[in-house]
Amino acid sequence: MALPYDRVYNFSAGPGTLPLDVLQQVQAELLNYRGTGVSIIEMSHRSPAFEKIIHEAEEDLRVLLNIPETHRVLFLQGGANLQFSMIPIAFLYKHQIAEYVVTGTWGEKAMQAAAIEGTAHAVYNGKPENYKRAPVISELDLNAMAQYVHFTSNETIQGIQYQADPKVVNHLICDMSSDILSRPVEIANYDLIYAGAQKNMGPAGMTLVIISERLIHRTPDGMHPMLDYRLLSEKKSLYNTPCTFSIYVSGLVYKKLLREGGLSTVQSKNAAKAEALYHEIDSSEGFYTGHALSDSRSQMNVTFTLPSEPLTTKFLMEAALAGMVELKGHRSVGGCRASIYNAFPLEGCLALATFMGKFAQDNR
Amino acid sequence: MALPYDRVYNFSAGPGTLPLDVLQQVQAELLNYRGTGVSIIEMSHRSPAFEKIIHEAEEDLRVLLNIPETHRVLFLQGGANLQFSMIPIAFLYKHQIAEYVVTGTWGEKAMQAAAIEGTAHAVYNGKPENYKRAPVISELDLNAMAQYVHFTSNETIQGIQYQADPKVVNHLICDMSSDILSRPVEIANYDLIYAGAQKNMGPAGMTLVIISERLIHRTPDGMHPMLDYRLLSEKKSLYNTPCTFSIYVSGLVYKKLLREGGLSTVQSKNAAKAEALYHEIDSSEGFYTGHALSDSRSQMNVTFTLPSEPLTTKFLMEAALAGMVELKGHRSVGGCRASIYNAFPLEGCLALATFMGKFAQDNR
Repeated sequence: MALPYDRVYNFSAGPGTLPLDVLQQVQAELLNYRGTGVSIIEMSHRSPAFEKIIHEAEEDLRVLLNIPETHRVLFLQGGANLQFSMIPIAFLYKHQIAEYVVTGTWGEKAMQAAAIEGTAHAVYNGKPENYKRAPVISELDLNAMAQYVHFTSNETIQGIQYQADPKVVNHLICDMSSDILSRPVEIANYDLIYAGAQKNMGPAGMTLVIISERLIHRTPDGMHPMLDYRLLSEKKSLYNTPCTFSIYVSGLVYKKLLREGGLSTVQSKNAAKAEALYHEIDSSEGFYTGHALSDSRSQMNVTFTLPSEPLTTKFLMEAALAGMVELKGHRSVGGCRASIYNAFPLEGCLALATFMGKFAQDNR
Repeated sequence: MALPYDRVYNFSAGPGTLPLDVLQQVQAELLNYRGTGVSIIEMSHRSPAFEKIIHEAEEDLRVLLNIPETHRVLFLQGGANLQFSMIPIAFLYKHQIAEYVVTGTWGEKAMQAAAIEGTAHAVYNGKPENYKRAPVISELDLNAMAQYVHFTSNETIQGIQYQADPKVVNHLICDMSSDILSRPVEIANYDLIYAGAQKNMGPAGMTLVIISERLIHRTPDGMHPMLDYRLLSEKKSLYNTPCTFSIYVSGLVYKKLLREGGLSTVQSKNAAKAEALYHEIDSSEGFYTGHALSDSRSQMNVTFTLPSEPLTTKFLMEAALAGMVELKGHRSVGGCRASIYNAFPLEGCLALATFMGKFAQDNR
């Protein structure tokens, strides 16, 4: 397989594949960032050069996601896992209720963190059926008194994804870690969206938070500074030293997405990529079995099993020899998982689909 | 001035200068990390290649700092600022006392965070005299019942540094963000040491924590996972996706320090670098005034003022034209600050000393 720089097709669930041209740009300007005489990773976060980087990252993201003036953009640290806790610490008190739509492992973890602060109620929980689908949120029996409703737009381990933006009367909070920027989103429907950088944006280390002013205003007084959305927003993500490198690379990715036509273009590309794999699963006459139900299938993480454990092992080994790596599924689902985030190329999906077809034929 | 790659002498207080050969190595292997076919920033934190990186980073650090088996090493996120809060959240309850030795801005912030959880008592507070010295901790009137004693080994804004390792009967906790790895340290004297990466180690994003098992055992149950030292330690810093790039670059820096003779060598180099600047200040016949008292002077951040505001502005402009940047002091101290962390070269200090001498001569 002829790949540039001997790079493989990397199906890692995260940190995942980034655009090659962005990596090349990072490499080219690593020793001297645009005439400043210093590397981006040696640069004060209070320098004009870095202020330009973080400002442009926010502005570009605002255009890409069409973020209204009612919402603030924060570049924080600690990943989705810290958000699991920051949200209930700030917005859920004892004897209050928050409702969680649990469609996979990450939603479950988010709900567990909320239970430390108040009452976390699973308004839907797919765990008994090992997470195979995403219910329509607007049809769930939501408690209008709940402080907020939380869901996970894409579950990476199970490969379960929402394709639409729900609307509820409560504050709506969404973990979009693994499908942010994969499609246009109606930001106004949400009060808080969060996402670790390491799937669709850049290197691990930065956590994107998009939060409405009306929710920020509910931040209580006396919070610890690093857990205080209001303070972090007032300081424009520069209360302390942020993860500068991750913000810089993510900013380059935002610019690339804008150049290439924005999120509708991204969405079409992602649909074609996922379709190549799901088509192969569905036409394999039962050799491959998709984990998620058809209407809940993720366009980011394609999960499927093979007829047996030995065949799965053989599949993974032969795929790796063919330059396709990190295809092993999470132990809770078994089988295989192809993570095909924004920057993963269509060619890689077509290569895997061809490989899957041949493997099924040879091992049926 | 002939600098490689048109790089300047970067006196930034942080993120600060990193070793050029480390930057070159990062650049060289950025598109394909050692034959894996993926970039370090696209690599799963659960892959064998990254597990080797984080394992070696810990092992090398253990050798460098001579960390005993009684202490664990964690690579976390959120910077020193999150540690300011995590420490009292975990180890200080209402009606309990913690003692803070406040020798500068960072110690003050740490104490403010502790006051959210319990009683934070300043056993020394240099604020009224605008932080000019570091008292001998062992001579302070410490309360043996205090849950812990906290101090800041180097205050970046004021340029105040401890040169020795104090020993107290309480748990001793130290913010070493800006002088970790600048000299050998008696780790056994401490129960918790923390440091953001972005001064003496690597890119912003990783926070080093060295914590004793006896303190870890005091972590209460029911903590939020990302604030739970015991859980983060049990998961060997891989409870969630860590800041992989910062850990990788810091690991390269650890290997370089080991190759070059360890922390005694580093200490000698740092002493020579700082001496070049302090000598210039002391021999300027009052043109330059050091902020810190002589016995508390930092070898990392050299703070000094000039006779007037216009002269300071002129100094900063002419220095920048001569390729010496980020010399402006923090507004709370005024004047100038030369941050000369481990990776900052002696040549840069000699160049600044020469410039200072000439500037004083021309503008006296």
